[in-house]
Amino acid sequence: MEKREDKQEEEQEQVVNPWEVTAKDGGKIDYDKLIDKFGCQRLEEPLVDRVQRLTGRPAHVFLRRGVFFAHRDFDEILNGYEKGKKFYLYTGRGPSSEALHLGHLVPFMFTKYLQDAFKVPLVIQLTDDEKCMWKNLSVEECQRLARENAKDIIACGFDITKTFIFSDFDYVGGSFYKNMVRIAKCVTYNKVGFLWSPFSLFSTSEFPFAVVQAAPSFPSSFPHLFSGKDDLRCLIPCAIDQDPYFRMTRDVAPRLGYHKPSLIESSFFPALQGETGKMSASDPNSAIYVTDSAKVIKNKINKYAFSGGQDSIEKHRELGANLEVDIPVKYLSFFLEDDAELEHIKTEYGAGRMLTGEVKKRLADVLTELVDRHRAARAAVTEEMVDAFMAVRPLPNMFD
Amino acid sequence: MEKREDKQEEEQEQVVNPWEVTAKDGGKIDYDKLIDKFGCQRLEEPLVDRVQRLTGRPAHVFLRRGVFFAHRDFDEILNGYEKGKKFYLYTGRGPSSEALHLGHLVPFMFTKYLQDAFKVPLVIQLTDDEKCMWKNLSVEECQRLARENAKDIIACGFDITKTFIFSDFDYVGGSFYKNMVRIAKCVTYNKVGFLWSPFSLFSTSEFPFAVVQAAPSFPSSFPHLFSGKDDLRCLIPCAIDQDPYFRMTRDVAPRLGYHKPSLIESSFFPALQGETGKMSASDPNSAIYVTDSAKVIKNKINKYAFSGGQDSIEKHRELGANLEVDIPVKYLSFFLEDDAELEHIKTEYGAGRMLTGEVKKRLADVLTELVDRHRAARAAVTEEMVDAFMAVRPLPNMFD
Repeated sequence: MEKREDKQEEEQEQVVNPWEVTAKDGGKIDYDKLIDKFGCQRLEEPLVDRVQRLTGRPAHVFLRRGVFFAHRDFDEILNGYEKGKKFYLYTGRGPSSEALHLGHLVPFMFTKYLQDAFKVPLVIQLTDDEKCMWKNLSVEECQRLARENAKDIIACGFDITKTFIFSDFDYVGGSFYKNMVRIAKCVTYNKVGFLWSPFSLFSTSEFPFAVVQAAPSFPSSFPHLFSGKDDLRCLIPCAIDQDPYFRMTRDVAPRLGYHKPSLIESSFFPALQGETGKMSASDPNSAIYVTDSAKVIKNKINKYAFSGGQDSIEKHRELGANLEVDIPVKYLSFFLEDDAELEHIKTEYGAGRMLTGEVKKRLADVLTELVDRHRAARAAVTEEMVDAFMAVRPLPNMFD
Repeated sequence: MEKREDKQEEEQEQVVNPWEVTAKDGGKIDYDKLIDKFGCQRLEEPLVDRVQRLTGRPAHVFLRRGVFFAHRDFDEILNGYEKGKKFYLYTGRGPSSEALHLGHLVPFMFTKYLQDAFKVPLVIQLTDDEKCMWKNLSVEECQRLARENAKDIIACGFDITKTFIFSDFDYVGGSFYKNMVRIAKCVTYNKVGFLWSPFSLFSTSEFPFAVVQAAPSFPSSFPHLFSGKDDLRCLIPCAIDQDPYFRMTRDVAPRLGYHKPSLIESSFFPALQGETGKMSASDPNSAIYVTDSAKVIKNKINKYAFSGGQDSIEKHRELGANLEVDIPVKYLSFFLEDDAELEHIKTEYGAGRMLTGEVKKRLADVLTELVDRHRAARAAVTEEMVDAFMAVRPLPNMFD
């Protein structure tokens, strides 16, 4: 019996890894605890200020509002940059569905800002191989989805002279495959000796793909881009659930003669139903998709967005909204760029002078504008542009 | 205690798989038991006769003397061939050492015969990736060894218009990688459901390479050779310890729309010290290498080749040699092509009229001639020839 209770206690703890994100007791993810557990660093204000100073432009909303809240050695990237040393960005996506939702756009919007601000090259991995393995999808369907997703990614505005997008199915091989085996070799030696605890996170079947995801962290995986630049640092913007992959990668890096990749890590974009809810691909009402019409967006927000407002107008006027759990306010803090207006809404809504309906209406407008803009940009992405972004080619001006 | 005894009993059973070959109780490998356990078929005389009839040439020594003693669906290959349907051959080597020994040559000598007799294309996989993973060797060293081994393989006389040799490090990618993931997907689904018992043979870390070795069994892994020929059958000559890899492959094949690859399987080439001994890369005296001089060959045979002769000449004249355990006779049965002479030696030696020294001398002559011939052929293999065999190219006359 005691054992059983132990197990229950364990199960109530929050679980965050590449395959599962579950808060404790149905509550919110405790990001402070996560930083402690993972051993990454909090992204504090002085670092944000430094980014502004070094790039000569205001920090992105996601940076100044703490959406990207943790990092590993991001300061080392900045130290190098200050001395004139460029780096490259690496991010990715598992193409398992045709339509992206807003949460999917977050890392790409932020990566576009980093590319523009630091003027650095970017590699984007589409892990169609892993999705093929774990979803009931054929190779061909995964490659089709990868191309469709590439259109959404390109629509975020990446610079074609600095960006290489690749599908694993197309690109794995050559130098990239050699790095996969080199990485696998390090990991296995660790595993056999039980020297390396983070590895225990990877199951038998995940193992090959952990290595596929690690390989782009090393410049030699891209000989057409970074030949002779083994000293180049890599910065990976990602959600914090990907941290275990890159802990493994950072452990391996020095043994293969590379810098450890740096990370800049975001919290999770919450479901409409609240931060305890999971955005589920099987429940289209848990998220706003970039394909949703203005009407659908308005309906989803009105019907499903969890409100921190009170049950009756009287009570709301008296107590105000609970901003901590309010999804419209949370979503606005991601996508309403005007700091003053956001503060105004929070003050008025928190004090009960503004009603949930008004906040939801403002959110619907903001998201409709965002989604319309994205959709127009995506419609302009041709098959030729996808081919151009995905061509294995040198990028002679990538550091300009 | 009882448990312990059980374990000992288990340990005494023979173990044959791609990673271990151990006879029961230090005796000989029981090939009949192996056929039963693996579920493959014995290669009987009628099948050998049929090969002779279909190819219009005498069966290879290895075939008529039972070195290749087992098969899976070899008869289906012949059924198709009889109706004018060609197939392709697939074999390979893990390049872990520079100098090959006679045992390494056996599958290649036999494959060359099959290519010549059936006039079919051949793909030869050099698994430098697997060797890099499991031996203390760098990627570069494994690729160097792969090229060196390719020279020995080319020296066996393969037809460049019908043969594609590839290093995994160079070739894995594209269609080949897609097939790897397709295969992995089938295997994993089986594994999860515990439906598929042979999988249990593959440990966590072997898993990716089982898939790398399976992929060449499907024609679509070679689009430059077999585009639009998904219906082409594959015949794999190999030692029987590789059977578990291809049981897995055969299980997966129909689910991916391919024929199950057929196998033709050999017994193990014994160590000089006897069939109970293991040919060990760490003991150069356990094998004859293709780099050994006439003098070294003579000395190794005289000093180490396990004799079935009696302790004294008197006893030998009286009892004769025990041919069952005699290594010189065993080696002659592999490499002395003249059936009449071999029979004569066995009769005379078995009756005690011929002495061990005489048999060993004949063996030294046979092997010296073989090794000299190989060495001369290898010396004629240029780097350009290696490049030509390993070029990813169509083979327009491969079925002529």
